[in-house]
Amino acid sequence: MSTVIKNGTVVTADLSYEADVLIENGVITEIGPNLKGNETLDATGCYIMPGGIDPHVHLEMPFMGTYSSDDFESGTRAGLAGGTTMVVDFCLPNQGESLLDAIKRWDNKSTRANCDYSFHMAVTWWGEQVFNDMQTVVQQRGINTFKHFLAYKGALMVNDDELFSSFKRLSELGATAMVHAENGDVVAEMTAKLLAEGNTGPEAHAYSRPSQVEGEATNRAIMIADMAGVPLYVVHVSCEEAHEAIRRARQNGKRVWGEPLIQHLTLDESEYFHPDWDHAARRVMSPPFRNKKHQDSLWAGLMSGSLSVVATDHCAFTTEQKRFGVGDFSQIPNGTGGLEDRMPMLWTHGVGTGRITPNEFVAMTSTNIAKILNCYPKKGAVLVGADADLVVWDPEKSKTISADSQQSAIDYNVFEGHEVKGMPRFTLTRGQVAISDGEVKTQEGHGKFVERAPNATVNRALSQWKELTAPRPVERSGIPATGV
Amino acid sequence: MSTVIKNGTVVTADLSYEADVLIENGVITEIGPNLKGNETLDATGCYIMPGGIDPHVHLEMPFMGTYSSDDFESGTRAGLAGGTTMVVDFCLPNQGESLLDAIKRWDNKSTRANCDYSFHMAVTWWGEQVFNDMQTVVQQRGINTFKHFLAYKGALMVNDDELFSSFKRLSELGATAMVHAENGDVVAEMTAKLLAEGNTGPEAHAYSRPSQVEGEATNRAIMIADMAGVPLYVVHVSCEEAHEAIRRARQNGKRVWGEPLIQHLTLDESEYFHPDWDHAARRVMSPPFRNKKHQDSLWAGLMSGSLSVVATDHCAFTTEQKRFGVGDFSQIPNGTGGLEDRMPMLWTHGVGTGRITPNEFVAMTSTNIAKILNCYPKKGAVLVGADADLVVWDPEKSKTISADSQQSAIDYNVFEGHEVKGMPRFTLTRGQVAISDGEVKTQEGHGKFVERAPNATVNRALSQWKELTAPRPVERSGIPATGV
Amino acid sequence: MSTVIKNGTVVTADLSYEADVLIENGVITEIGPNLKGNETLDATGCYIMPGGIDPHVHLEMPFMGTYSSDDFESGTRAGLAGGTTMVVDFCLPNQGESLLDAIKRWDNKSTRANCDYSFHMAVTWWGEQVFNDMQTVVQQRGINTFKHFLAYKGALMVNDDELFSSFKRLSELGATAMVHAENGDVVAEMTAKLLAEGNTGPEAHAYSRPSQVEGEATNRAIMIADMAGVPLYVVHVSCEEAHEAIRRARQNGKRVWGEPLIQHLTLDESEYFHPDWDHAARRVMSPPFRNKKHQDSLWAGLMSGSLSVVATDHCAFTTEQKRFGVGDFSQIPNGTGGLEDRMPMLWTHGVGTGRITPNEFVAMTSTNIAKILNCYPKKGAVLVGADADLVVWDPEKSKTISADSQQSAIDYNVFEGHEVKGMPRFTLTRGQVAISDGEVKTQEGHGKFVERAPNATVNRALSQWKELTAPRPVERSGIPATGV
Amino acid sequence: MSTVIKNGTVVTADLSYEADVLIENGVITEIGPNLKGNETLDATGCYIMPGGIDPHVHLEMPFMGTYSSDDFESGTRAGLAGGTTMVVDFCLPNQGESLLDAIKRWDNKSTRANCDYSFHMAVTWWGEQVFNDMQTVVQQRGINTFKHFLAYKGALMVNDDELFSSFKRLSELGATAMVHAENGDVVAEMTAKLLAEGNTGPEAHAYSRPSQVEGEATNRAIMIADMAGVPLYVVHVSCEEAHEAIRRARQNGKRVWGEPLIQHLTLDESEYFHPDWDHAARRVMSPPFRNKKHQDSLWAGLMSGSLSVVATDHCAFTTEQKRFGVGDFSQIPNGTGGLEDRMPMLWTHGVGTGRITPNEFVAMTSTNIAKILNCYPKKGAVLVGADADLVVWDPEKSKTISADSQQSAIDYNVFEGHEVKGMPRFTLTRGQVAISDGEVKTQEGHGKFVERAPNATVNRALSQWKELTAPRPVERSGIPATGV
Ligand SMILES: [Zn+2]
Ligand SMILES: [Zn+2]
Ligand SMILES: [Zn+2]
Ligand SMILES: [Zn+2]
Ligand SMILES: [Zn+2]
Ligand SMILES: [Zn+2]
Ligand SMILES: [Zn+2]
Ligand SMILES: [Zn+2]
Repeated sequence: MSTVIKNGTVVTADLSYEADVLIENGVITEIGPNLKGNETLDATGCYIMPGGIDPHVHLEMPFMGTYSSDDFESGTRAGLAGGTTMVVDFCLPNQGESLLDAIKRWDNKSTRANCDYSFHMAVTWWGEQVFNDMQTVVQQRGINTFKHFLAYKGALMVNDDELFSSFKRLSELGATAMVHAENGDVVAEMTAKLLAEGNTGPEAHAYSRPSQVEGEATNRAIMIADMAGVPLYVVHVSCEEAHEAIRRARQNGKRVWGEPLIQHLTLDESEYFHPDWDHAARRVMSPPFRNKKHQDSLWAGLMSGSLSVVATDHCAFTTEQKRFGVGDFSQIPNGTGGLEDRMPMLWTHGVGTGRITPNEFVAMTSTNIAKILNCYPKKGAVLVGADADLVVWDPEKSKTISADSQQSAIDYNVFEGHEVKGMPRFTLTRGQVAISDGEVKTQEGHGKFVERAPNATVNRALSQWKELTAPRPVERSGIPATGV
Repeated sequence: MSTVIKNGTVVTADLSYEADVLIENGVITEIGPNLKGNETLDATGCYIMPGGIDPHVHLEMPFMGTYSSDDFESGTRAGLAGGTTMVVDFCLPNQGESLLDAIKRWDNKSTRANCDYSFHMAVTWWGEQVFNDMQTVVQQRGINTFKHFLAYKGALMVNDDELFSSFKRLSELGATAMVHAENGDVVAEMTAKLLAEGNTGPEAHAYSRPSQVEGEATNRAIMIADMAGVPLYVVHVSCEEAHEAIRRARQNGKRVWGEPLIQHLTLDESEYFHPDWDHAARRVMSPPFRNKKHQDSLWAGLMSGSLSVVATDHCAFTTEQKRFGVGDFSQIPNGTGGLEDRMPMLWTHGVGTGRITPNEFVAMTSTNIAKILNCYPKKGAVLVGADADLVVWDPEKSKTISADSQQSAIDYNVFEGHEVKGMPRFTLTRGQVAISDGEVKTQEGHGKFVERAPNATVNRALSQWKELTAPRPVERSGIPATGV
Repeated sequence: MSTVIKNGTVVTADLSYEADVLIENGVITEIGPNLKGNETLDATGCYIMPGGIDPHVHLEMPFMGTYSSDDFESGTRAGLAGGTTMVVDFCLPNQGESLLDAIKRWDNKSTRANCDYSFHMAVTWWGEQVFNDMQTVVQQRGINTFKHFLAYKGALMVNDDELFSSFKRLSELGATAMVHAENGDVVAEMTAKLLAEGNTGPEAHAYSRPSQVEGEATNRAIMIADMAGVPLYVVHVSCEEAHEAIRRARQNGKRVWGEPLIQHLTLDESEYFHPDWDHAARRVMSPPFRNKKHQDSLWAGLMSGSLSVVATDHCAFTTEQKRFGVGDFSQIPNGTGGLEDRMPMLWTHGVGTGRITPNEFVAMTSTNIAKILNCYPKKGAVLVGADADLVVWDPEKSKTISADSQQSAIDYNVFEGHEVKGMPRFTLTRGQVAISDGEVKTQEGHGKFVERAPNATVNRALSQWKELTAPRPVERSGIPATGV
Repeated sequence: MSTVIKNGTVVTADLSYEADVLIENGVITEIGPNLKGNETLDATGCYIMPGGIDPHVHLEMPFMGTYSSDDFESGTRAGLAGGTTMVVDFCLPNQGESLLDAIKRWDNKSTRANCDYSFHMAVTWWGEQVFNDMQTVVQQRGINTFKHFLAYKGALMVNDDELFSSFKRLSELGATAMVHAENGDVVAEMTAKLLAEGNTGPEAHAYSRPSQVEGEATNRAIMIADMAGVPLYVVHVSCEEAHEAIRRARQNGKRVWGEPLIQHLTLDESEYFHPDWDHAARRVMSPPFRNKKHQDSLWAGLMSGSLSVVATDHCAFTTEQKRFGVGDFSQIPNGTGGLEDRMPMLWTHGVGTGRITPNEFVAMTSTNIAKILNCYPKKGAVLVGADADLVVWDPEKSKTISADSQQSAIDYNVFEGHEVKGMPRFTLTRGQVAISDGEVKTQEGHGKFVERAPNATVNRALSQWKELTAPRPVERSGIPATGV
């Protein structure tokens, strides 16, 4: 069985050119003129791009005895509908749980995935077992990225010496550190203070974690990563302060990447001041939406390269679930959707305005993260030998985003009413057409786990530099040498 | 009894002008031409300036069962010899000790002081008693500045929620926060790692606490202070990273001050690479000396106003005491001298080069800190009604710094061999001549405690702004307002 | 004749304290408790502050065959009504005109002034005569500040080598450079382009000179001043880009000051989008009003010290004059009023919110500029011997700004409808009460020219540093030393 | 005739993988395992990379009646010896000369080239003819990059309105602006001043153009480019100030690239203080070498992406030519060599230390500039269809750089004595082996001109954004609308 995509323009992070693409057994086998296959997809007027990779999703995430409402089936279906062909979820061990046991739980959930996926491992507690498990996870389970929470005190949060210990361990293992960067101590105190003062509405969620709280934690994680000699990936960078810390680090030659979310790029804090409680509560996520100044900063970061990847932090809760927090914003489950909308929204506001080029779009939505995750060019590429995770992108196709027509399981959409221009004509997951001009043809369980090896090029380079510049003792002939 | 200083030029932070100064009962009673008094001091060719205030000293500080070697007698004598007429020491409660008990211990030591002094209170642990004692300390004991250690893990260090709690308490009390800003978790881990790798010499002290470790903690303290609504004073700012954090904060309108030390302004890290162990160990202090890039940053900060005060962190240990750390740098007592040398060194390298003006010199050595501490114009001023803490400064007087001729009790001087030009002809403490053209006439026990009231102008302004911009709940008619 | 101000609190840039102030012959002769004089002014509940100094006004400025509408009489009357007791106007030589002849013209106009005043000299062309006149102006006419226009191409603008030549001359003479910083080449081209495209309305004035055009020129002037070794004062800093350039310069230890205007601190660019042409045209000035981001930057600069002085650039044109530019924005005379409103507006939005303290208010409106201009403490001080240019400030007095009740000769006010709280109860010019609780008692011709000597402290320090760091030839024994 | 490179690892800016490369008729025709060809090159242990592109050379450049000593033959031979397979020279019209006539002169010189080359056009004067010629040059001569000199007053320099006019023209034509950024007015004045003061040695060349003079011009060019809506490429970025301006611009979303030179990355200003005049004079170039602080800045810029391309500004003068400037540094011809050394030096100090990865090395030396110049993937790529401009890089091959063994025609080498590790085993120019394990097999005249089309992706995106955000008139119903 072979498929050929004809009459389109291949657009990658690297270049654009006209060519047909031949796919056999889920893999790209030829790129060139006049290709033939059993099945033909017409890409006239379209761009043939690497399918999107969303490196930040939480599908069927355990929460207060229930789960986030999009699971690996509906979540990946939503992704495919928007041109995303791979997601990376966060495996979250319970306190005291072995990392390997946690992976088992995630393996169970992910069997239903419609597209390929991978996991980041979260370090949610610290101990000898975690230290030992990390090696197994890296060397036997194909996971080279480890998330740490500086927020969620009393639950997921780790403190600075645990962070430093874990980062040093990652450096040894050739893996990469990730952080959710907000100062959990301050958020906890602010939350208590706001509630005590009668600030109980969803807007107080934003008050409880201002941008400088995120900036501080980002800055701290960067320092600790540099001391440990490990590359760092900062998830959901929402504000100038965090971006500034990343920018400053990069300007000192540090290996740090920042990930803004499509929500923070296009929505702002005024959503929380909406008179409708549900409207506001549905937008509660961490970090919260920020003002226009921060938006400008994020866009500029993407344009200049100080920020690298656009993700969603897709973690969908229904209105009913959100209402757990009526009367107490701290009980509103944190998270919004976005998997289906990330690529059309970024194209519309980025490529459609001239802020970014189509090649940069591919870099930000797919190729950069594939390299960071060390699964390039299996993913994120249009190259012979690469997985045929492709999106045939029609720059003229448009729609108005609405919950009524979305794939996600929830009953609203934070982008409701937004017009997008630029959408998938076809989305292919390992060669299989999952979306065909609006028609959903996904296949539950088609998705496979993507293993990712450690010791990527950047890790090796960083280790070399750290070794070269490591502290050396001063040679002294007698100690103490002076008399008194 | 009256004293008149004649034929000099009064130089304050505000302006310079020729006038005589009349002193009666330890207070300035008249400034103008042709004044007369019982005693006359000739200031021909000299500047009559406010005596220096060193806001950062540790005299007779308890340490490993012994004490730092300069006590309130020798320390203040050294200060007076260099033109400094007031020192502020840090009162350090033991774990669990009442703040008031700690003050008693400090009261006992300070009875021998040759010049006036005050205390900062350190918050070295956290609990209800500390919370309550803080009010007493502020309202009854005349202390409005509270130091917090982000380093010295397992001893003085407080963590982020304690810091936030303490800062909020200070905001309520109208007091000011101070921090020793180095990330204690990282320093502790680095120390262990370096020792394990055989990096045991004094240079490893510097390796264990690179500049970014200081920058991180500074940045963190600033965020927490802003969230708490309290002005922040960062002691011993030694590097660009910490200075950058302060600068950035000030550029966001935050009330933050930075204090470089004269050592960091004039000495650099190459001292630690000296082949003589004693030479290197004698320079061990925290933060350690940095490279020239950091020196340039500190000077520029003083010139532009992003740094405010030059201090010493005078904490003198003999060579014998330093040798506790032979074979293990972490056992070298931290601290150097500087009380006698601060003003001549700063004049020589600052005014003598044109980098700063004489008025700016007065601001940095005396007036700025008097205002920050809220004891201006009793101290730090040449005004009628002010204490006659004065230095008659001879810009032509010079010497070569040497341990042989110093007042300090220790057997070396980190500035050994440095030439200075610009020294006191006379130093007066509340009108009494303590130093007269090189002759030491100090009087043990002459010094008195300086009480400092809370709610300084800056504290009030900051509280007003924080009140104005405090979070307000969104008014909603029904919650949730939307049906499902 | 003596006057005593009783029951008030003296508030200076340096400190606040309760005292009476005695004035004799226009000079402060005593400050202290229980003073007596012929006349008594009651300052109960008020602050006795140095009268404001507005260093940037254009009174009766020649323009297109007519003049700006406020002359030295109405302009200084407006100033006094708002608490300002000294203004500095710009003496503008015609092309080829001797600087001394220009001063004569300005001397003639200024005879009607109600309060003291001084002049900045503008360097509007370059040649040997200007070079020679500069010395006379500095040494015989008491002017030590020289303005240069980087904008107004074909009229006032000087190019870079003229600027460098003039700055070097100023360095020799111990004077200080000033710049109007906008890139005149770009403004001229943009103006032509906008008009050609049909952008003829007042909003196009703003389009023709975006913030980066100001930032560039500021940055350029700073570099040239540093190369020439002269302190630099940047007038009407309106935006982040210019402020950033100043900040960066100061952080490199350069002697640069920035002057935001009260208009830019409190009004924004939306004024130009007003549907009423007159409304927009009345706000046309250079630089134009900016957006909120820039306002925030200016406030932060004042708070942190990277900006130093608040002025007005008062240059008032009537609506009739503004209408010269109907159909062609480039013909709208540039300028707005503000002399009467500067201090109440700054107090309201600065002290009234807690952003600045009363002492900082005095620094920004009076003392800082008096020092920069080298007329301190004759002006800008409440000290014995200083001119009794004083404002008795009532923090509870309020009004709504309106053209109906203003002193200015024009028919509108850009702050129309703004509420202010904090106004003069009395304004005294050299001891004479000009404003008494709203009653105007100014005396035409009372004002005198204020001479200002060169070689201020900062100039001397800078020259010393430049001499110390001047290029030195490498000593070589033979040149070329190597054979070929 | 076909050639196959076997047993190597293909290393591109995008990725690394093991494959053979087949070349036919100068073009890459296949990449994959087990390829066969007439000729086989063994790449065991080597990286097969795109040949280097040096976008900044001056071969046989006219100068004072003579020429720079490396012409297109020796220059390109030197390039090939070091792994560089394409150079871009600057076509420099005389004052008043048609751009097309200047191209003819360059066409004549370049016939001897051993490898492919292209031209940047310089705008050295301004007038209607230049305006018109620009269109021909872009549309018919395949040149889309135009250089402007802000230095060399009285010769190549253009002023700001010429710059703005030219930049606007480039925007219309879809071309890209380039600048040599130093403030020519200041350099000219400084030069005269230094000579007058007896600073005549080569070190005074550096004194005459400090880093801030470069920073200023860079900042100015960036502003003007943004106003004109054209992408900007800044050549020979040597210092933090220029880098800062670029960084700041990029952080505002501007399309600006910076090009550090290998000399500035690895050599410093101390070279000018050498006691041997010849040693110093041989290093005279503009901008001059800077201190270590600037070096660190450049490296960090490359690592973080704020700087994009490493070039040489190869412009070689013999010692004899350099001696034109004995007694007057301003007569020393500006320029150094570097073509042969760029890639080995960057590999050694970049990849060899871990500061950059092999992929980043390719990006900086070849791919990035190929994209900027819009000749990618014809050049700068290892892709089927690309020109076979390849270097087979042996990371273990080492040498000590010496003039004795170099290809350049001059009698010294500024890197004399430097050890490099990492050198070409083979260099191929369009499939022809020019360098084979140290043996030079270049063929004079083999090189062809590379045409480069306008309207690259980035130009189009920028124009779209500028159109979207262009000034719009405010609609007003009546003007003026208010009565008086
Ligand atoms: Zn998160
Ligand atoms: Zn998340
Ligand atoms: Zn300390
Ligand atoms: Zn201390
Ligand atoms: Zn102006
Ligand atoms: Zn003006
Ligand atoms: Zn050049
Ligand atoms: Zn060049």
